[in-house]
Amino acid sequence: MSTDPVLLTPGPLSIARKTREAMLKDWGSWDSDFNRITGRIRQRILEIAHAQGTHECVPMQGSGTFSVEAAIGTLVPSSGHVLIPNNGAYCARMVRMCKILKRQVTQKDYAEDAAISAADIDRWLTDDPSITHVALVYCETSAGILNPLEAIAEVVARHGKRLIIDAMSAFGALPLDARRIKFDAVIAASGKCLEGPPGMGFVIVRKEALLESEGHCHSLALDLYDQWVYMEKTTQWRYTPPTHVVAALDCAITEYLSAGGREARLGNYRRNCDELISGMEKLGLKPFLPSSIQAPIIVTFHAPKSPNYQFKSFYDAVKAKGYILYPGKLTQIETFRVGCMGQLGPLGMNGAVKAIEEVLASL
Amino acid sequence: MSTDPVLLTPGPLSIARKTREAMLKDWGSWDSDFNRITGRIRQRILEIAHAQGTHECVPMQGSGTFSVEAAIGTLVPSSGHVLIPNNGAYCARMVRMCKILKRQVTQKDYAEDAAISAADIDRWLTDDPSITHVALVYCETSAGILNPLEAIAEVVARHGKRLIIDAMSAFGALPLDARRIKFDAVIAASGKCLEGPPGMGFVIVRKEALLESEGHCHSLALDLYDQWVYMEKTTQWRYTPPTHVVAALDCAITEYLSAGGREARLGNYRRNCDELISGMEKLGLKPFLPSSIQAPIIVTFHAPKSPNYQFKSFYDAVKAKGYILYPGKLTQIETFRVGCMGQLGPLGMNGAVKAIEEVLASL
Repeated sequence: MSTDPVLLTPGPLSIARKTREAMLKDWGSWDSDFNRITGRIRQRILEIAHAQGTHECVPMQGSGTFSVEAAIGTLVPSSGHVLIPNNGAYCARMVRMCKILKRQVTQKDYAEDAAISAADIDRWLTDDPSITHVALVYCETSAGILNPLEAIAEVVARHGKRLIIDAMSAFGALPLDARRIKFDAVIAASGKCLEGPPGMGFVIVRKEALLESEGHCHSLALDLYDQWVYMEKTTQWRYTPPTHVVAALDCAITEYLSAGGREARLGNYRRNCDELISGMEKLGLKPFLPSSIQAPIIVTFHAPKSPNYQFKSFYDAVKAKGYILYPGKLTQIETFRVGCMGQLGPLGMNGAVKAIEEVLASL
Repeated sequence: MSTDPVLLTPGPLSIARKTREAMLKDWGSWDSDFNRITGRIRQRILEIAHAQGTHECVPMQGSGTFSVEAAIGTLVPSSGHVLIPNNGAYCARMVRMCKILKRQVTQKDYAEDAAISAADIDRWLTDDPSITHVALVYCETSAGILNPLEAIAEVVARHGKRLIIDAMSAFGALPLDARRIKFDAVIAASGKCLEGPPGMGFVIVRKEALLESEGHCHSLALDLYDQWVYMEKTTQWRYTPPTHVVAALDCAITEYLSAGGREARLGNYRRNCDELISGMEKLGLKPFLPSSIQAPIIVTFHAPKSPNYQFKSFYDAVKAKGYILYPGKLTQIETFRVGCMGQLGPLGMNGAVKAIEEVLASL
């Protein structure tokens, strides 16, 4: 497997060989051995968020987006009103969800290179008391922005409103402590900072919010309340779980904890990010974001200035050298992205920078 | 891995070692190598259903139930009216979905040991012309009933109504030919008769029905139309796919085709089923269903008459001998179920019967 390219993407990631090997076993979804795995995942995710006792972890089949929709559909009643500050595609996706789910939504747009401001949220919540929920993307991977979660959570709590956090590319690496910040839901997925395979998400839900949510959901499959009640009663998933993915996530979490947990993972990603940015700057490639709001998760770079540059051929050439890049997602400017997450192989991020250097030289 | 128990369940199944090994590789969900796999799966599923040119195959993240909800939510407009003949839990689940999705539904209940009758459908469609769709479970694994798909499809077509087929535990083994029967949708999943790992479903949709379905769906994540449009445009999944599961399903389909395809698979399952029923009858264990409506997919048996019998300890003892049984799902009678699908190991179904025999002797 040594020739497989390293994924420099915001998930799916290159995951540990041991985690992939956990998928070599078949599990009965009704069997107690498997259900113990599910229980252990739920418990350890709560512990990672310091949310034991106050919150519940409800896993959900599908990609992370399925869990975001499950959280909004289950936790926001039809009479709710959601404020969504928007500085990227994942914020915009939640706006679209609210519209489809017929939840009143107020969208406030930011520039693609601006972090969301707690002072703005304060003003908007003051201006419109009908808002019941704020839905925030913690790390907006469209550009790679780190939004100031703790300051925003403080404002939302002060107004007595409820906070739903899309922590997809943040959970397990960036700080998120339920003892310090108030939230109704934190959403993430198996194939992100916990470095499992993709295929399931999970929502950490405040217990009281979950207990109030019966009958809210627009969907049967995505009903978090129903999923939770069934799981509590039976220890099983309500519908067939992705058994191999679940077993691999459990393995990934064991590796994560034994390697030092959240702070160690953040340290790895930060080192990857620093090596990436300093290496790329030496090649004349500038990050799109100011460093003050750059999350150590994924970095957007301005495209090389060479007239011979085209993303497709650049991508193919870097891939041939063993690294898979990610296209840019900005609407106006030509960019590409490089993820800082996952198992980068023996050469680490410097191997990726070297591959990019060689390709640039051949342009 | 030789000590792993064999799963005698209706999915997840025991799958081929080679299929599991396909999960040892990480894939970028944006990369063309991965998207070729997705394209190949879609194409080959259409071919298995003889639906090339007339239908589209739209994969969907999550369990099979997610795909059923996606099909109903996307293909039945809010003005639709769905007739659901109900002879088991999966029929009842579709009824519940329609209610949550606010689609008018008419439910017609059968006994748990009765197949749905085409003559009944004919009468109900005559009696209520406002019905627009019939939603049918092909193989109802609650008891193991094979419903007469072809006769029902003929009646539905004659009335000019639309047919949605939950073929979850049937597709890839039981006959289903789009040239012979008319349908708007056939729904199945990766972890059933195609013998992949669980984690994704798919819907085979009639092209015209798909083209009419824009804007119907109650959900963003489960919108089949949106998923299809995005996939056609980009070759990618709209949201993160379960990459390892997708790669393994592709491998499973290759094995399936090279082993002789649908008829060979049905032959295997029928032989497993025959060996199971004849072996169990020798042990005094009677199938719940008459053989005329027994699908060769999963068999419900009356619980042993021994006063010492309890499902939990029976299950544990059979598991200790290497076989995982499935609990009964009937509401009145004590039963257990044995699946006929998947890779049963070198001893085949007779190994399972022998294990059950030994456990019964020790009761």
